[in-house]
Amino acid sequence: MAGVEVPTVGTPAGMRKINQRAVLDLLRRGGPATRPQVAKDTGLSKPTVSQALLALEAAGLARPTGQTSTGTGRSAVLYEADPTAGYVLGVDIGREHLRVAVSDLGRVVVARRDERNTARSGAALVTAVGKIAAAAIAEAGLSAGDIVVRVVGSPGVADPEKRCFRHAPNLPGWGRAGLIDDLEAVLGPDLMVENDANLTAVGEWESGAARGASVFGCITIGTGVGMGLMVDGRVFRGATGAAGEIGYLPYGRTRAADEPGTPPARGHLEEATAAQSVVQGARELGLGTAKSAREVFRLAREGDELARRAVETEADRLAYTVASVAAVIDPELIVLGGGMGTAADLLLEPIDRALRAFTPLVPKVVQGELGEDAVLTGAISVGLRAAEGLVFDRRVGAA
Amino acid sequence: MAGVEVPTVGTPAGMRKINQRAVLDLLRRGGPATRPQVAKDTGLSKPTVSQALLALEAAGLARPTGQTSTGTGRSAVLYEADPTAGYVLGVDIGREHLRVAVSDLGRVVVARRDERNTARSGAALVTAVGKIAAAAIAEAGLSAGDIVVRVVGSPGVADPEKRCFRHAPNLPGWGRAGLIDDLEAVLGPDLMVENDANLTAVGEWESGAARGASVFGCITIGTGVGMGLMVDGRVFRGATGAAGEIGYLPYGRTRAADEPGTPPARGHLEEATAAQSVVQGARELGLGTAKSAREVFRLAREGDELARRAVETEADRLAYTVASVAAVIDPELIVLGGGMGTAADLLLEPIDRALRAFTPLVPKVVQGELGEDAVLTGAISVGLRAAEGLVFDRRVGAA
Repeated sequence: MAGVEVPTVGTPAGMRKINQRAVLDLLRRGGPATRPQVAKDTGLSKPTVSQALLALEAAGLARPTGQTSTGTGRSAVLYEADPTAGYVLGVDIGREHLRVAVSDLGRVVVARRDERNTARSGAALVTAVGKIAAAAIAEAGLSAGDIVVRVVGSPGVADPEKRCFRHAPNLPGWGRAGLIDDLEAVLGPDLMVENDANLTAVGEWESGAARGASVFGCITIGTGVGMGLMVDGRVFRGATGAAGEIGYLPYGRTRAADEPGTPPARGHLEEATAAQSVVQGARELGLGTAKSAREVFRLAREGDELARRAVETEADRLAYTVASVAAVIDPELIVLGGGMGTAADLLLEPIDRALRAFTPLVPKVVQGELGEDAVLTGAISVGLRAAEGLVFDRRVGAA
Repeated sequence: MAGVEVPTVGTPAGMRKINQRAVLDLLRRGGPATRPQVAKDTGLSKPTVSQALLALEAAGLARPTGQTSTGTGRSAVLYEADPTAGYVLGVDIGREHLRVAVSDLGRVVVARRDERNTARSGAALVTAVGKIAAAAIAEAGLSAGDIVVRVVGSPGVADPEKRCFRHAPNLPGWGRAGLIDDLEAVLGPDLMVENDANLTAVGEWESGAARGASVFGCITIGTGVGMGLMVDGRVFRGATGAAGEIGYLPYGRTRAADEPGTPPARGHLEEATAAQSVVQGARELGLGTAKSAREVFRLAREGDELARRAVETEADRLAYTVASVAAVIDPELIVLGGGMGTAADLLLEPIDRALRAFTPLVPKVVQGELGEDAVLTGAISVGLRAAEGLVFDRRVGAA
């Protein structure tokens, strides 16, 4: 989109755009403000601020939002960043669920959809993702063109060359080359893909249990097991993007000689720790009726002895996981996210007790605050960061 | 020390020092150079370079080192950074050994001492460290005042508040508050303390097997087990400095219920993997004569079947370690350092085979290139970085 021309006195166009961006960023971060307030907070002159606000308003990036009256009885126009200047689509793809949220630039979720994932193939899952996303966009009264950035959270590690996900054994077809192109075909351009545990970590860091943490891991347990790792506010990815793939921790394995050949698709720890293992463990203990981890946790809360023992076993495996992570990176905090995070009331105490019995490196372990919204919250955060720049550049032109 | 006055024409003293530092840094990085070469490479004028060289020479930081003849037959004086302007002391403290090196600013080791560590208490060890350091300094014909920076590598994690080392169970008394002050009392001021595995990693990254690696771990195995972790050329320490304390990996542990109470001083993995466990493993296999890990490795190389099986077991435990590290941080490279690194010819192939049998995350595993010198090499590197600035500031004054 071409730049919007506003009258200026000898200001180079580049400088003008930088000033406009500064004014817009101030309104985005600081909320509604009057011209004099903007001038004071940006250090720009009042005429410059007036020009910038005119240009931003013409570009649909800022808008008047009311009046304020000052002490002397004079009123001034309040401006705000226009949250409808663009929208971000967040998608959370799991083995059992599909979740979609549409957020405006002001971080207000304007549509939200949850569905069970019943797809049996990669192609069917891509189709289902496209449909639920389209439904959410329509529900918000928007069209695909209003979406500036799409962010997909998925298990596994995005392979930028083969355009698919490695290490995602729970999603059939997800390792097929070109899978990400297929997602882009149904969702639209400017698609970002990210590991779901990483997005959970971003969400918990931005607005959940990990605010202010400098080195922390967010362990998510559901169908699979993953960990998002953040250092100084940035996702730590490792050499190939597989940092935090803790499902591959060698749990219970002390001799390789027993297991020659190719590695199993699912890691040792994932087999032992994922939600299904809680159900299986409970059944082995004689709790024949348990159908889901959620049910086992409910029974444990009601005092069922077998369910309590199944929970204890799960806590013990999580302690193993936390101890392994602590011995390698020494985090200040571990957040339990994903479905298992909802059972933190049952798990935190036995995890801590188990940890203290066998390692001196005991990080604080807490429940995630975002629950099932965590991946979407992280996706929206990542998307908004990208969208803010994109929307400005498209409507005003890059500085 | 006061700044050295040289004649200048209207140059502020601060700027003068910055230019001197730039000239000195060029000589340190680039080697000997003539005035015109220095002027060309720094972008400074020839008079400024002449003044700077005069000042550096007067301060004992640079010196003429010969003549060069140009194409036209005229000869020019070559200047070099004076490597004798200061010295760095590196100390490597291990359960079984004490090693000391003195390096000049040109990274030439001018004295080197190795001793067995026979101390039975913290106080005795501090005394022994002081003696071997003094002997090395004397051997180099230097006095304590010539040492600009002291760097001590030790197992454990330095506690800056209690001034001692946490997590160093193999060194008696090392956890006593004030221990680091005692070391400073015998070694002198400007003492830096650092985990020995971290220094090994720095050494291998600066001049060994990990040159250019962006995310790598250096696993050291001797009396204890440790790992130095580097990300983008910097040591990654975690929240409390305990990152890489892999001796605490929960090896072979699948149920906490068996082990209530306080954690053992040594970690599970350390018990299983450290050098002594190789000897013990060999004895359990019937190799009653083995007295050291080194001997077990020698026997394995000679084809002794029991020794080979003991090595295989050690390789398997190292594979467990590498797999755990890979699942958490996904390094591109693992370097085997310390005493066990010398057995890489025996260990690397079975480690790789074991890894591939049970995880898809298989980093490259290589032998360290620095052998027993690794900790000292890292200590000297860390010390030189600090010493270059200190020496300049003391002899010329801070800019």
